[in-house]
Amino acid sequence: MAEIPDSHPRKASLMARQKMVDAASIGLLAESAMIAHGRGEAYDYLLGERTIESASLAISEAAARLSEAQNPVISVNGNTVVLAGDDLIRLAAIVGCPIEVNLYYRTDERIGGLLSLLDSQRESVASGGPPEGWSGNWRERVLSVPLLGSEPDGSISGLAGPRSLCCKDGIERADVILVPLEDGDRCEALISLGKQVLVVDLNPLSRTARNATVTIVDEVSRAAAELVNSALDPSRSTEWDNEQCLREALSVISDAGSLI
Amino acid sequence: MAEIPDSHPRKASLMARQKMVDAASIGLLAESAMIAHGRGEAYDYLLGERTIESASLAISEAAARLSEAQNPVISVNGNTVVLAGDDLIRLAAIVGCPIEVNLYYRTDERIGGLLSLLDSQRESVASGGPPEGWSGNWRERVLSVPLLGSEPDGSISGLAGPRSLCCKDGIERADVILVPLEDGDRCEALISLGKQVLVVDLNPLSRTARNATVTIVDEVSRAAAELVNSALDPSRSTEWDNEQCLREALSVISDAGSLI
Repeated sequence: MAEIPDSHPRKASLMARQKMVDAASIGLLAESAMIAHGRGEAYDYLLGERTIESASLAISEAAARLSEAQNPVISVNGNTVVLAGDDLIRLAAIVGCPIEVNLYYRTDERIGGLLSLLDSQRESVASGGPPEGWSGNWRERVLSVPLLGSEPDGSISGLAGPRSLCCKDGIERADVILVPLEDGDRCEALISLGKQVLVVDLNPLSRTARNATVTIVDEVSRAAAELVNSALDPSRSTEWDNEQCLREALSVISDAGSLI
Repeated sequence: MAEIPDSHPRKASLMARQKMVDAASIGLLAESAMIAHGRGEAYDYLLGERTIESASLAISEAAARLSEAQNPVISVNGNTVVLAGDDLIRLAAIVGCPIEVNLYYRTDERIGGLLSLLDSQRESVASGGPPEGWSGNWRERVLSVPLLGSEPDGSISGLAGPRSLCCKDGIERADVILVPLEDGDRCEALISLGKQVLVVDLNPLSRTARNATVTIVDEVSRAAAELVNSALDPSRSTEWDNEQCLREALSVISDAGSLI
């Protein structure tokens, strides 16, 4: 890729874009993944490409709920693994939960490719130092994070076809699911099964954003890094007003109008 | 592609997305074209996927300026040809101007592929009936629209490398350029050459939107269809307040906040 100077005000966004282009070129992403990424870029631009205050609160809430869960799981798709796989492995290690690759447009090739990318990210995270505030055997803890998805032996009731496939030890038995960048139908199906669904979605008006239990309106790699920090010292979960959280995000987007 | 029912509220957007996916799969688009399209989808969603009032005014103004120009030209990239090629050929026929394929990431293969797509669109537009309000030999008029770009014999001063290439009979000698979906650097370079630059850009905060002479904040296929109508019976150009036009678009985006 072309070198982007550190001083470039939009360096993080441009580097994320390049990661997506590279991942698409080796077949890790669905056809419409780049379009979805572009939509995210637009909303993030309006948010100022920063974690807004209401998103920070949603991140704390999500970390609290993951920590208190009986059977938490992190469900990831291609965009999520490419943009935030490392930090989500850290998060899974801290919370002590599996990561399940679960795709809307499922193909065995992409599931395999993404699991293999996650496997190398897990090795690299295990070899790096533990996050500040962690005590214990970090390497062992990270390498014990289960990476699920290659053999879906469960299903999400309420969905039909390949979109309903999931893993028994992952999504099926989970009470709390962190599923960044989820599709609206699937978010609704998971909610109607009585699960807590924690999402990361840059569009506060999307069906996913409006139906989720906790919506983090933030770019996925920034959110994942903050989730790691929050999970190291989680607060207690609260009565969460998700609608208020979405209203605050929309008001930031509205204020983008004052930029010119 | 999967059939989208006519009743689907977002049918136009989903069909446009499919056109982009199809075009990408045959190599007509640059790597980042899908991401750019996704950004557009997000802004269009906030605009309500309709031509807002200030965009209608900008379309009339652009049609007037094209009609009054000495040497108008329509400069197109991949996304524009794929999404709005047909109507831009109609517009070129009515205005009596060439269409130049001009790419930010120029490759001979993509220039050739896009010219060949435009050629088949021109044949199809020529074979269809004339737009209501047109008198004269429509077929002859359409087939006489020059399709430029394969042999760039001119240049855009102020730009370096392949991005500066253009055609003498197209962009180089033009006084008024309709260039939907233009890059910020190139928009600035064209403006500083004293040309009138008319753009279509869904992000009212983009550098292109802010630097252009007339900015149509609208989805390119809707804008192209309306430009055809306006050019058939153009009004006269005015003192145009582009900043006011952008402010109105931003205020519509801000009001999207009232949707929840």
